[in-house]
Amino acid sequence: MSGNSFGLLYCVTSFGESHGPAYGGVVDGCPPGLELSADDIQRELNRRKPGSSRHVTQRRESDAVEILSGVYEGRTTGTAIGFLVRNEDARSKDYAAIADGFRPGHADYTYFQKYGARDPRGGGRASARETVVRVAAGAIAKKWLRQRYGVEIRGYLAQLGSQKIEFQSWDEAGRNPFFAPNAGIVARLEKFMDELRESGDSCGARVNVVAEGVPVGWGEPVYGRLDADIAAAMMSINAVKGVEIGAGFASIAQKGSEHGDEMTPQGFASNHNGGVLGGISTGQDITVSIALKPTSSIRLPRRTLNTRGEAVTIETTGRHDPCVGIRATPIAEAMLACVLMDHALRHRAQCGDVRPPLKVEKPRKIN
Amino acid sequence: MSGNSFGLLYCVTSFGESHGPAYGGVVDGCPPGLELSADDIQRELNRRKPGSSRHVTQRRESDAVEILSGVYEGRTTGTAIGFLVRNEDARSKDYAAIADGFRPGHADYTYFQKYGARDPRGGGRASARETVVRVAAGAIAKKWLRQRYGVEIRGYLAQLGSQKIEFQSWDEAGRNPFFAPNAGIVARLEKFMDELRESGDSCGARVNVVAEGVPVGWGEPVYGRLDADIAAAMMSINAVKGVEIGAGFASIAQKGSEHGDEMTPQGFASNHNGGVLGGISTGQDITVSIALKPTSSIRLPRRTLNTRGEAVTIETTGRHDPCVGIRATPIAEAMLACVLMDHALRHRAQCGDVRPPLKVEKPRKIN
Amino acid sequence: MSGNSFGLLYCVTSFGESHGPAYGGVVDGCPPGLELSADDIQRELNRRKPGSSRHVTQRRESDAVEILSGVYEGRTTGTAIGFLVRNEDARSKDYAAIADGFRPGHADYTYFQKYGARDPRGGGRASARETVVRVAAGAIAKKWLRQRYGVEIRGYLAQLGSQKIEFQSWDEAGRNPFFAPNAGIVARLEKFMDELRESGDSCGARVNVVAEGVPVGWGEPVYGRLDADIAAAMMSINAVKGVEIGAGFASIAQKGSEHGDEMTPQGFASNHNGGVLGGISTGQDITVSIALKPTSSIRLPRRTLNTRGEAVTIETTGRHDPCVGIRATPIAEAMLACVLMDHALRHRAQCGDVRPPLKVEKPRKIN
Amino acid sequence: MSGNSFGLLYCVTSFGESHGPAYGGVVDGCPPGLELSADDIQRELNRRKPGSSRHVTQRRESDAVEILSGVYEGRTTGTAIGFLVRNEDARSKDYAAIADGFRPGHADYTYFQKYGARDPRGGGRASARETVVRVAAGAIAKKWLRQRYGVEIRGYLAQLGSQKIEFQSWDEAGRNPFFAPNAGIVARLEKFMDELRESGDSCGARVNVVAEGVPVGWGEPVYGRLDADIAAAMMSINAVKGVEIGAGFASIAQKGSEHGDEMTPQGFASNHNGGVLGGISTGQDITVSIALKPTSSIRLPRRTLNTRGEAVTIETTGRHDPCVGIRATPIAEAMLACVLMDHALRHRAQCGDVRPPLKVEKPRKIN
Repeated sequence: MSGNSFGLLYCVTSFGESHGPAYGGVVDGCPPGLELSADDIQRELNRRKPGSSRHVTQRRESDAVEILSGVYEGRTTGTAIGFLVRNEDARSKDYAAIADGFRPGHADYTYFQKYGARDPRGGGRASARETVVRVAAGAIAKKWLRQRYGVEIRGYLAQLGSQKIEFQSWDEAGRNPFFAPNAGIVARLEKFMDELRESGDSCGARVNVVAEGVPVGWGEPVYGRLDADIAAAMMSINAVKGVEIGAGFASIAQKGSEHGDEMTPQGFASNHNGGVLGGISTGQDITVSIALKPTSSIRLPRRTLNTRGEAVTIETTGRHDPCVGIRATPIAEAMLACVLMDHALRHRAQCGDVRPPLKVEKPRKIN
Repeated sequence: MSGNSFGLLYCVTSFGESHGPAYGGVVDGCPPGLELSADDIQRELNRRKPGSSRHVTQRRESDAVEILSGVYEGRTTGTAIGFLVRNEDARSKDYAAIADGFRPGHADYTYFQKYGARDPRGGGRASARETVVRVAAGAIAKKWLRQRYGVEIRGYLAQLGSQKIEFQSWDEAGRNPFFAPNAGIVARLEKFMDELRESGDSCGARVNVVAEGVPVGWGEPVYGRLDADIAAAMMSINAVKGVEIGAGFASIAQKGSEHGDEMTPQGFASNHNGGVLGGISTGQDITVSIALKPTSSIRLPRRTLNTRGEAVTIETTGRHDPCVGIRATPIAEAMLACVLMDHALRHRAQCGDVRPPLKVEKPRKIN
Repeated sequence: MSGNSFGLLYCVTSFGESHGPAYGGVVDGCPPGLELSADDIQRELNRRKPGSSRHVTQRRESDAVEILSGVYEGRTTGTAIGFLVRNEDARSKDYAAIADGFRPGHADYTYFQKYGARDPRGGGRASARETVVRVAAGAIAKKWLRQRYGVEIRGYLAQLGSQKIEFQSWDEAGRNPFFAPNAGIVARLEKFMDELRESGDSCGARVNVVAEGVPVGWGEPVYGRLDADIAAAMMSINAVKGVEIGAGFASIAQKGSEHGDEMTPQGFASNHNGGVLGGISTGQDITVSIALKPTSSIRLPRRTLNTRGEAVTIETTGRHDPCVGIRATPIAEAMLACVLMDHALRHRAQCGDVRPPLKVEKPRKIN
Repeated sequence: MSGNSFGLLYCVTSFGESHGPAYGGVVDGCPPGLELSADDIQRELNRRKPGSSRHVTQRRESDAVEILSGVYEGRTTGTAIGFLVRNEDARSKDYAAIADGFRPGHADYTYFQKYGARDPRGGGRASARETVVRVAAGAIAKKWLRQRYGVEIRGYLAQLGSQKIEFQSWDEAGRNPFFAPNAGIVARLEKFMDELRESGDSCGARVNVVAEGVPVGWGEPVYGRLDADIAAAMMSINAVKGVEIGAGFASIAQKGSEHGDEMTPQGFASNHNGGVLGGISTGQDITVSIALKPTSSIRLPRRTLNTRGEAVTIETTGRHDPCVGIRATPIAEAMLACVLMDHALRHRAQCGDVRPPLKVEKPRKIN
């Protein structure tokens, strides 16, 4: 498995750079017969598109996707689905000022040291614009999971810098540019972001994702656990520094008598385990929470090195998201969808003849 | 890649159940010529061995490892290293009482539903005793990383239930049964555990792991990131519900001007990124923190189902760790070692001809 | 995927050396619920066992298999199946004479150059005794394929050195030590082998393998073709230098009007394609033929080098098969079984919802 | 690893259909710093291009390649190399006549049965036009292998239907449309093909490929053998039904005293093993021979079924290669190049610290 691919059976391969001609991807392993059009993918791409509010990067990209293979007469054929998203609004000259200096906290330093050369234009391969491929692959997975198993995957912004956001409704999360599931807080978030932008600084965020309707039994022992693959998928998103499943870090201070989700014939009494036990789905909601660090490209002056190792000061202008977490919700949803689809196929491969002996309902979920 | 294997080039395959005849593993991809004896592995196995204090399970296992292949005249040959650890003190009768009921928060429920059958003896394949294989594989990786690159991997207990543990010294972490890096707190931890055990309950824990001396450049974009693989490896450890790299969840509330690690010719001014940028090692310490949930096998009565789906109450006696986190330190170290070794080999494969253009020292680390 | 593992979903990992303590393997991905005992495996191991006639190596091994995991109460659990076969009759002193010289045509030269060190005892990891692991893994696959799909996998010796062997009956192939499907030729083969052994030389062989009852649809485009995986599996068997599917090399001189298997509502009119079209099974018999080279360990004097690069003459005594092909039939069957099982699972994963639109019988097969 | 990808470290992913908008691929794992332009790839693509003589399909494609990522300022960056080749001359109407019938010997039958649907246009994903991706990926591998190790990979047509072709010179193989390494035979081949085309039939072919300059030590035991991966790569080429390494099937009738390549301080005395022993390169030429079956799309009437399972007669008009083997030489070279590059990287990963203890020259090669 190469570093630009992930998934064992639902396998996504990605290529492209921020200021190259295009991003593209190959989705392999999708079952045949799924109705699929460019629109299905476009709808999700539009959710992560830049330039959609003043709080995100002002780069203008239509992010129009072209499906190149794997779909015939409106349905997947079972062969590799290739797709392309052309870059339209790259402004490489914006990077002239920082062509020679490493942004503190940015991957341009490690790429330079690893590969021995430098592509300063927009972060090159390290740019978060690569997530366009993930969202496209996730759109296909979401559709199949919904149609085949009734799985619904949704996310929301749970914290923006210092601002915690109480969950109120999924509907609201779709109505504002923050994916904030709470109408009452939007004005506060806007003010917070306006001040942040003005200050030239950036902030982090927390995004929560939930998959409802996942059947019991997906995931594998010991290393192939569902939660292990979710953790890798989430941590592979640009800027993510932490991943929790279920109660996550709160589990540390819990007692076993509190944490262990009791079962009744009507269902589980709680979901501290976040829908995964022993690496295998329980049938409850899969609940994941991720921490995204503040953007490293900021206007404030910072001490750094140039490519000759000399001390310099850097101030990053150009167009950047002051909080990458704002656009991260559809990305995290997409990654969860890809992992779940991969495990749905893996489970069917090995356990296609097994019927889960017990039927348990799941009356409670934790958002 | 099967669910019981991990690693692309340093590949570990595991088998065994808690109450079967033995655990064993195969380590593939180890470079030839490494001096290796059973003692090198045994030393690490002894650190995670059960029965070593009253605060962990009283199961008595020598955990004696037998190397079956891949080593000739005291050195690795480059071929597959097979090894075996026999089970000696399995008491299957302890499980008679719970043979029919699912422990809340335990994987015996999901295994039953996934595979359609039940091995109630000691958790079967879901038992944390499987970590013996990880520790053995990690011992080999640790030795190679130390000899070849001077990498040092160490961990400690950072929190036990409600008890936070301040880091004071690595030496102390090796002197007490908790891996607590702080002599002053040990008595308090003992009292806490004695009370917990008496109450019949269990608690969670936080374990921190640090790799020092990792060269810049290990890790791959985009999905094959070093931190993504670390996240998967950590989340695959039994009971882990959260993983952080560097500042982790604290990044959310940080500003970019605080989080982004400034660089000077003398080195980085901080390490909020935990030694990884864009999925590639920076040359700073790799810092990882994990959350372990409380043990699900507790004496307190809990509502659950039996294998016929009927409501029952379960009280788990037998021998169990009241806090699996206490023995998790060597396991987390081992997983980090395996991932780093895998990426050391991967980096050498692709970039064996690259010399990092810049030399940067690294005067600061975060524990 | 490491070099000592193969298979994507039915994944076999192998370890052990000819004169080490044991061989062993891990089979991952086997569906749960399959009745399985050590006897099921032993039966196949006995078919490849050394010492069973004067025409093969006289090393005496019981090849007794011990199942260490993955089976509970007589059925597979779905978790990793670990097994062990102890070495009992290694005579390392036999190798003193050749400890310093490379046998022409033997892998001891390339291992020495690759890994920089030498394990002269019985070929070390390069010994064909490793095939014990393949046969064990294949025994499990054969059983599952037979029970789940009615697939029957059988092989026979088709040529022994200069002696071509006409196929007459499967029954006869099980009755003589050559796996020759022709009673009339056995005496001639015995005479041929007696003379060969006396001459101190060795010879090659051709083995054919057939899988009957494979459903249409197994295999994947483009690189994941069923025949590509079969080719790799066969070529990975010690001493194999050629692989054919269906008409194989005879296809070169065929016309399209002869080669292309016509179809009728009653079935295919021929099977020149060997049961695979475009990398996907047709529903006809899968027919494979392999060429095994003559054993490199022979008594006749040969020019070679020693480990210091000096010209020496080598004569290999010790116990060796004068024709490794004689014992290769169960090995080739096992490899075909493992590949088919892997693809059965892969097909079910992706196309579990597809019913092949056409029903076609298959009245003709080519042996 | 998905079915549309191959290679562990030099990993090629492919997409596209004969009558879709484009073919494309992603090459992952290429070392950074390699000078690379579209021209480097185009040169190889032109060698396999259709329409270059009257003996191959008359479809007119410029096969112009566009590099979309992974190259910056004329050098590889170390990140994924994406590329695209647009289809220009697809004539789907040619397929109207056969839209409903399966060509005997063609994959359209197995695809239909596997995936439950049918893309009749030009073979869809099963079309040999997919090899454009292989040749592009192979061009990069060839260049790197030549620059880094001095490896030279070349092939030629060794048999065309009934016509055996004696090897005379590499130069001549580049001068005629058959890749025939023998000027004297070209007129005969032209006559043979003219008659074949006129008859409406097709024929098979043999292609030989040789890699010179491969260092000793590439390849891995036991399943990861160099020859096993070569066998898979070759068998994955459309129409290939047989693969030989070195003496191949001739090994069967050889004696060990003939087959085993003797060694002298000046080098090996022969190369029956084709440059591979125990799955590891010997330092001699790697010699591979493949059998390609006759094209299944022929004008002669053939019995077959239509998509409703009814008996029909089919005559395939449209534009087809009467012998796919004629254009297979650059494809086979490309596959060998990709496999060798993958193993070069794998070897460097594990054995980067090993120096082969012995220096042996290699004065003899077998073509």
